[in-house]
Amino acid sequence: MIKTVRYNAGEPNSTLDRIRSRALDMNQALVAQVGEIVECVRSTGDEALVRFTKQFDDVDLDFHKLRVDPDFIRSTASRADSRVVDAFRIAIANIRAFHERQLESGWELASEHGVVGQRILPVASAGLYVPGGRAAYPSTVVMNTIPAQVAGVKRIAIATPPGSLEHNPTIAAVISELGIEEVYRIGGAQAIAALAFGTPSIPRVDKIIGPGNVYVAIAKKLVFGVVGIDSIAGPTEVVVIADHTADPRFVAADLLAQAEHDEAASSICITTDAALAREVASEVERQLATLDRRSIAAASIERYGAVFVVESIEAGCELTNLIAPEHLELMTENDARAASLIENAGAIFFGPYSSEPVGDYIAGPNHVLPTLGTARFSSALGVHDFIKRQSIIRYSREALSKNADAIATMAEAEGLTAHKRAVLLRTGDVS
Amino acid sequence: MIKTVRYNAGEPNSTLDRIRSRALDMNQALVAQVGEIVECVRSTGDEALVRFTKQFDDVDLDFHKLRVDPDFIRSTASRADSRVVDAFRIAIANIRAFHERQLESGWELASEHGVVGQRILPVASAGLYVPGGRAAYPSTVVMNTIPAQVAGVKRIAIATPPGSLEHNPTIAAVISELGIEEVYRIGGAQAIAALAFGTPSIPRVDKIIGPGNVYVAIAKKLVFGVVGIDSIAGPTEVVVIADHTADPRFVAADLLAQAEHDEAASSICITTDAALAREVASEVERQLATLDRRSIAAASIERYGAVFVVESIEAGCELTNLIAPEHLELMTENDARAASLIENAGAIFFGPYSSEPVGDYIAGPNHVLPTLGTARFSSALGVHDFIKRQSIIRYSREALSKNADAIATMAEAEGLTAHKRAVLLRTGDVS
Repeated sequence: MIKTVRYNAGEPNSTLDRIRSRALDMNQALVAQVGEIVECVRSTGDEALVRFTKQFDDVDLDFHKLRVDPDFIRSTASRADSRVVDAFRIAIANIRAFHERQLESGWELASEHGVVGQRILPVASAGLYVPGGRAAYPSTVVMNTIPAQVAGVKRIAIATPPGSLEHNPTIAAVISELGIEEVYRIGGAQAIAALAFGTPSIPRVDKIIGPGNVYVAIAKKLVFGVVGIDSIAGPTEVVVIADHTADPRFVAADLLAQAEHDEAASSICITTDAALAREVASEVERQLATLDRRSIAAASIERYGAVFVVESIEAGCELTNLIAPEHLELMTENDARAASLIENAGAIFFGPYSSEPVGDYIAGPNHVLPTLGTARFSSALGVHDFIKRQSIIRYSREALSKNADAIATMAEAEGLTAHKRAVLLRTGDVS
Repeated sequence: MIKTVRYNAGEPNSTLDRIRSRALDMNQALVAQVGEIVECVRSTGDEALVRFTKQFDDVDLDFHKLRVDPDFIRSTASRADSRVVDAFRIAIANIRAFHERQLESGWELASEHGVVGQRILPVASAGLYVPGGRAAYPSTVVMNTIPAQVAGVKRIAIATPPGSLEHNPTIAAVISELGIEEVYRIGGAQAIAALAFGTPSIPRVDKIIGPGNVYVAIAKKLVFGVVGIDSIAGPTEVVVIADHTADPRFVAADLLAQAEHDEAASSICITTDAALAREVASEVERQLATLDRRSIAAASIERYGAVFVVESIEAGCELTNLIAPEHLELMTENDARAASLIENAGAIFFGPYSSEPVGDYIAGPNHVLPTLGTARFSSALGVHDFIKRQSIIRYSREALSKNADAIATMAEAEGLTAHKRAVLLRTGDVS
């Protein structure tokens, strides 16, 4: 049963506290274990990859089989359901159109002081981790790959545990559809380490993206700095702000769609209407009964689900800003007004027909979104994650002369007199 | 004496290996020690701040003195040299103009599929760490603050060790000039923890920026995820690509300007001209002799300085891409051509008069730049570090109907049947 709780700003609220206590479990022992795997791959390369693949996946890999044969990708792809592949083609077109709009151009600004500007270049290479088993979502492969391709990343490599393509031909189909040919049969922390440091068989990449289990998450955190990473994905979450105009069946269905992902997912309705709260709760029960993944969804609703009753839309938006949810749905009389009060949310879905799965699959915006409150300071994966902004400075002799005094004064004030000297040497004031 | 070394691509090069071996020293013992400080501040708040300030800074703080009185900032600021403050005013105007050009607008894209878009919002709050002692650079306060202000960040808080304003009135002056009134007398890892988690006296922030010693760097890495961070700053570095047209005095002066920062700084000239290499080496010796900070500069040049002689500008650019320097200066016959071969560099300085201090102080681009090879995947601090991109999805009933089949097909293929159900409920295909 989903809990219904009144929420008053500033007052203690144990339901909210429990929801906000969710965190990635990166305990010391796990971190040390992953640290050893990473170090071992860094120092012994392919040998470590073969050994860990035997140990963790119980698969005997030869060095020369680390890379998946492109023909094998194509033949596996041909086993995918063509209706599914057609649907992904529509999604790919929409996702590409959205991300193309994110492209930025370089620019220059000229003034009496000189020319300054910004160049935009794609990172040279990206490595995408694709988990195995049930967590392997072809839609996530698409969402991670397209912004990199739109940014202009020349080399995109995938690492995925042995057997994942065989078990899920749709993954092979979208890989084919996206034109990726560099795929390695390596999973877990060892895959992240290989992509970060490189091995004789796997050239290192500049940026690692993609979700994974806790070992993968810790490995990404450990290699951050050696390589760029996207973010550490946490369990998924949705907040639905609803008033008396909302359809409780829609609200309940969307809470359950989130809850079926994971027992640690969090599905929250925030409403001004106590009657709606009751109807949503009973709809959740009714719809839950027939779901395929009802045991997962029920556990998630039990642990991290809630309907908060608030006194106004303003109060509901403040609560939302505190939670900073990955997904926010608005089903109110005036969604534009509610949205204007929202500071923190990864993606905002407007109105009763913008169900969250629309964004998961087809609309175009990225479904890789900030979780666990990180929407306070971070954003959906996008083209900006795959570019470098290089500053440009071009000063003439005249521009330098005009500014030499000011630079020398500031450098002197900071005690950096070789900085001052480098400028005065050029103006002829020192030799 | 700076080493002169021939560099041939693909061949082992011990000088290059030594330069590339530079890394932040984040050893296990230090990480554990910083972890305890962070945890202690998280659990006991202001009490821990007072205790650590006594322990590390030998200063007795009362809780109510954690925050610096705005009048004290103003009175300290008035002791700064007015010529220096005037120079900073010029810099502030240029830096603001550059960063205003980085501002992005939101947008929407409408199609038969529905409306999608992107909203741009500033993060609500940012915390800037300002180190004490000789590492306190007013220019860095300016460079960290302006992009946040231009992005529209409403609350900017500074944490700096006790005494740092008193010892350096120019810091107080730029804080005043920038209009920042929220300043705390707290340094080290405990300051980072306070900004990340909040204490009764110091409300938490959404993003932490600013340089610091190794304790600060480790603390930033530990709290990353709870709060956004800029990057972990490493020692500074410059590469100068020079051919026979370059003035060896200018090259040497710029190598030394970098070297005076820090014994771990790295100053590298890459040249096609063996004669220039010799002249640069002898100029480095000549100019070094009279530098104020010659012992630091000499140690840096000895450990991580080098002149690499290469066979072509192409080879020099490839070597530069491998190093991915924070700063790159081009002093060649055709700098535009050289720049077109550069993939990895934080900032590029064109021609003999664009000495690196021009960018440190006055030109406008940010001097907070990626170090230690991270220019492969990251960029100068900018407005983009202080915004959130929120995705927007607004589907009508018609748009949803058009796409319902495709969404249902993909959701089904991924085993997420509650996702499918949320869509089909709206089209009336399930109840």
